[in-house]
Amino acid sequence: MQLTRYTDYSLRVLVYLGMKTDGWATITELAEFYAISRNHLVKVVHHLAQQGFINTLRGKHGGMALARAPGLIGIGDVVRRTEPNFHIAECFNPTADHCVLGPNCRLKSMLNEANLAFLGVLDRYTIADAVANQGLLASLLPGPK
Amino acid sequence: MQLTRYTDYSLRVLVYLGMKTDGWATITELAEFYAISRNHLVKVVHHLAQQGFINTLRGKHGGMALARAPGLIGIGDVVRRTEPNFHIAECFNPTADHCVLGPNCRLKSMLNEANLAFLGVLDRYTIADAVANQGLLASLLPGPK
Repeated sequence: MQLTRYTDYSLRVLVYLGMKTDGWATITELAEFYAISRNHLVKVVHHLAQQGFINTLRGKHGGMALARAPGLIGIGDVVRRTEPNFHIAECFNPTADHCVLGPNCRLKSMLNEANLAFLGVLDRYTIADAVANQGLLASLLPGPK
Repeated sequence: MQLTRYTDYSLRVLVYLGMKTDGWATITELAEFYAISRNHLVKVVHHLAQQGFINTLRGKHGGMALARAPGLIGIGDVVRRTEPNFHIAECFNPTADHCVLGPNCRLKSMLNEANLAFLGVLDRYTIADAVANQGLLASLLPGPK
């Protein structure tokens, strides 16, 4: 069981921005810091801006920053908005479900309850909690160039 | 977020066997009932037998049956033993983790807590609970030929 890489990268972008307290971050900076593909990050950042988690500014001195305080960005909210779906099993996907058991089988409600418990834990945390080791994390950030 | 098809099929095999109260089931019977590939089922059934969830009997009158009462087969146990991993994010996988944040980031412990909550819910249920609509489900089974 895994979250998609897309969600993983989205969380990492938000954690980075939660650590960075001075100025805007760039995609190049994020790509170098995490050693991950610029192309992936472009899509992730675009979507995070669309979802209202970050603000972006075009131009030479542009970049991105959190759209609100880290303590106001729930981890559960991010995961819900970045995962393409929560089709835990085939029966969750109305277009792919061919299981003959249908509603008589109780597996679906169990798996649904488990999924809600998963998201419920994440709803208790924010980006501020993820970067609670602020000092240590900030020391990892690249210094001024 | 999804479980693998492998886990999905494993649960379905166990649910079928939990419904079937007379005699052994065959792979052909399961493949026809669920309209899923025999090849997939062969692997799933082999693994379920290895893990002690089912007994198999070779030969003309052979087949498979649950190795213990449905109420003694925990859904959480099945999912733990059939999912290839619980690498919720890259940082869970020691061989693939390249995230520079390392242990200073608290995302990993949050995701781990969420994963344990997911499995914790499934630990409260068994195959007996999944087939609690026994009468209705049994009516779906193929009759004697």
